Amino acid sequence: MADKKKMVRDITSRDEDFAKWYTDIVKKAELADYSSVKGCMVVRPYGTALWENIRDTLDAMLKQSNHENIMLPIFIPEGLLQKEKDHVKGFAPEVAWVTQGGSEKLSERLCVRPTSETLFCEHFKTVIHSYRDLPKLYNQWGNVVRWEKTTRPFLRTSEFWWQEGHTMHETAQDAKEETLFILDLYAKFLEDYLAIPVIKGKKTDKEKFAGAESTYTIEAMMHDGKALQSGTSHYFGDGFARAFDISFQGRDNKPAYPHQTSWGVSTRLIGAIIMCHGDDDGLVLPPAIAPTQVVIIPVAQHKEGVLERAEQLLNELKQVCRVKLDDSDNAPGWKFSEHEMKGIPVRIELGPKDIEKGECVAVTRHNREKHIIPLSEIANEIPKLLKEVHDGLYAQAKENLQSHTYKAHSMDEIMDFAKNKTGFLKTMWCKNLECEMYMKEKAGLTSRCMPNEQEELGDVCPICGKKAETMIIWGRAY
Amino acid sequence: MADKKKMVRDITSRDEDFAKWYTDIVKKAELADYSSVKGCMVVRPYGTALWENIRDTLDAMLKQSNHENIMLPIFIPEGLLQKEKDHVKGFAPEVAWVTQGGSEKLSERLCVRPTSETLFCEHFKTVIHSYRDLPKLYNQWGNVVRWEKTTRPFLRTSEFWWQEGHTMHETAQDAKEETLFILDLYAKFLEDYLAIPVIKGKKTDKEKFAGAESTYTIEAMMHDGKALQSGTSHYFGDGFARAFDISFQGRDNKPAYPHQTSWGVSTRLIGAIIMCHGDDDGLVLPPAIAPTQVVIIPVAQHKEGVLERAEQLLNELKQVCRVKLDDSDNAPGWKFSEHEMKGIPVRIELGPKDIEKGECVAVTRHNREKHIIPLSEIANEIPKLLKEVHDGLYAQAKENLQSHTYKAHSMDEIMDFAKNKTGFLKTMWCKNLECEMYMKEKAGLTSRCMPNEQEELGDVCPICGKKAETMIIWGRAY
Repeated sequence: MADKKKMVRDITSRDEDFAKWYTDIVKKAELADYSSVKGCMVVRPYGTALWENIRDTLDAMLKQSNHENIMLPIFIPEGLLQKEKDHVKGFAPEVAWVTQGGSEKLSERLCVRPTSETLFCEHFKTVIHSYRDLPKLYNQWGNVVRWEKTTRPFLRTSEFWWQEGHTMHETAQDAKEETLFILDLYAKFLEDYLAIPVIKGKKTDKEKFAGAESTYTIEAMMHDGKALQSGTSHYFGDGFARAFDISFQGRDNKPAYPHQTSWGVSTRLIGAIIMCHGDDDGLVLPPAIAPTQVVIIPVAQHKEGVLERAEQLLNELKQVCRVKLDDSDNAPGWKFSEHEMKGIPVRIELGPKDIEKGECVAVTRHNREKHIIPLSEIANEIPKLLKEVHDGLYAQAKENLQSHTYKAHSMDEIMDFAKNKTGFLKTMWCKNLECEMYMKEKAGLTSRCMPNEQEELGDVCPICGKKAETMIIWGRAY
Repeated sequence: MADKKKMVRDITSRDEDFAKWYTDIVKKAELADYSSVKGCMVVRPYGTALWENIRDTLDAMLKQSNHENIMLPIFIPEGLLQKEKDHVKGFAPEVAWVTQGGSEKLSERLCVRPTSETLFCEHFKTVIHSYRDLPKLYNQWGNVVRWEKTTRPFLRTSEFWWQEGHTMHETAQDAKEETLFILDLYAKFLEDYLAIPVIKGKKTDKEKFAGAESTYTIEAMMHDGKALQSGTSHYFGDGFARAFDISFQGRDNKPAYPHQTSWGVSTRLIGAIIMCHGDDDGLVLPPAIAPTQVVIIPVAQHKEGVLERAEQLLNELKQVCRVKLDDSDNAPGWKFSEHEMKGIPVRIELGPKDIEKGECVAVTRHNREKHIIPLSEIANEIPKLLKEVHDGLYAQAKENLQSHTYKAHSMDEIMDFAKNKTGFLKTMWCKNLECEMYMKEKAGLTSRCMPNEQEELGDVCPICGKKAETMIIWGRAY
């Protein structure tokens, strides 16, 4: 087990230095690497395989609900970006500008898209003419660039990969329903596939997307009690449609402006998975999106029959899960820690004695529990075990969320939380910006969301003492 | 049928004006649209679905042969691009330069990647240390930018989508084998999935990739007899490895440079599909990558039982192919031409009389043949029919290729071809640049490739009369 200790020593402990533990995992699990391009990362094969599973799963859910994919240009001409005032104000300070193409100095600068509302609007104008053309339910998988000063792999990088949905609807009601439909879909995706419980809610005006009428969010809690905004869904009203002069002939033959939404999740979700489920031995992956769900490790593999039986097991399991056989000549101990680092949900150990008894040992990564499984039952038992792992991960994350969620009714209680605790803090709020700013300055807390599931914590805003308008959740965020 | 005539009138005839016919199809089949970004296109949902099928099919073939996906930055710092001399000379004139990030003027310009050899090399340097780390078989799906002066959707656009494989090997032999392995894989992909026959061969030194030792190509012939370079595979030797100082400890414990390849196919393949199979009624899609393989069109759908039976048919066919039911209230004639324009391989017509007889009519798009199929046999017969369509498309394209391939033994024969024919011209060649340039100037022909399957057409270069070194194929290219 010397090898194992060596590997473990290489990771900072999660409780000692969470930030360093995080970057250690990114490197050691071979998810990503730095590049010489400021703020941009290389997503390595293991990280890419993880992202592809996230993409393909979510993509199927979006297609199932009649969304279509589309591919738009990487560049936005400066004039196009400027068409919607709030939007350009929000994004212009953080974009990369192309000023030269080949040997030609451009007459109009192009920004590398930080998000594609403006490009979608330009295209919508050419394809929307009548109410019969609505809704348009478009989605794009791609890369975007935002010039970030401080970057961390997956959590905040100058270039990241994401999906951005952009939809146009006949009525405001339809668009609002889409905004919330996607919020629910995102929440379901995180809970059912990433094993991450989330809180759904609305962002404050201060925190909403540049150009949106309202922004909804799913907020997840990381193991350290900090919040990660994991996906957002925006309702635009007809603001962009008016700015881009997109109109359609309505059922009453009169011209009307369509109503719009946009929504996205990104490679940031990989950061959420790391920080929600990982531990001191490395990554812990939810089975639904793990590139390898089960790894078979032969014990005493030089002994007669062991490798043959392991290969037979591999072929049986291939029918029911994503499985690999590690028959390299590394020591079993080294293999154990290697695959633990990579967060493979289930490890199967198979040695001569197991074969004799007609069984194998399955160890679940997240809780180290050993399960003796008859080899004849393996194709039935492993899918059940993977489901148990998912449920276990979800329960663990839910417990962390619930035990780190607090309520406050006064500034004293707020300050007590700010000084002594981490997690989410629920309070009432008057909806005034001053109180939101005060929380940031005095308590170091930012608004996460006004949750869809409201609770009654009195009728007074504890910050200013005036009438409360809503319950709100505060926290420290990535 | 008035509707149908109307739509057909909207497309230029293929024989009248091939270039205009091409752009008409791109627009009318809703594959792509123009954008306000110079040279960049919007790939619409139908074009994107087609590209996703191409991507997913090829991706599975690459993964099957142990290639792994990876995601690298969109930007290349100027200094990094300059590390390999021939490479920068080839690409610097056609890249887009980012000079400003947010409010900050960059101290070093970044180009938007035109291809990623340099980024891969930078990453390889950090992950290759020992012969045990080899081979590295990496692939990336993404977008690249080359500042093109004249653009046409899919064929040549300033931004395009592609896969770029980059591999590193222990020996030159291994790298050369990979180069040819991929060339064969590309040829198989085009033939088995896109129904496009290709000629495999080696590019001349003049035409090879900037920085490569040798470039291999698959050349396809379009319906108009012009060539389309449809995929390339490059062998780099250790040139980049030396330029980037990438070395590994060999089996003999001595440091060595790894040997490299790169290879790619792009959204240009969609152009190949259009120009190889399309006709005067629109697009014709090979079944393997058609977003919809079969469309069911109910006839007299208001009559009792028709829609119900059509839906039953839909559900049965969903088990064996990608199928849609068009129960919109458009007239059947309008539906026929709409789905013909979109190139859907098989149309099923189902009316009250068909139902009475227990059969339906399946019409294959590429040859308009009608097939009467018993409804009880539909799940068996449709996959067979799709296979027939594929074989029919392939045979048609092969016939076009063969009947437009000529041989010449003298300048007279070459000039006769140049003046009176279109297609591929085989000649011997001395391998001198002067003769290659002369062919371009005098005959308007460019070298396509020195085919892997050589033929003996004498021992003299017909251009200069000197000793021939190889058989070569000339043509006019997109």
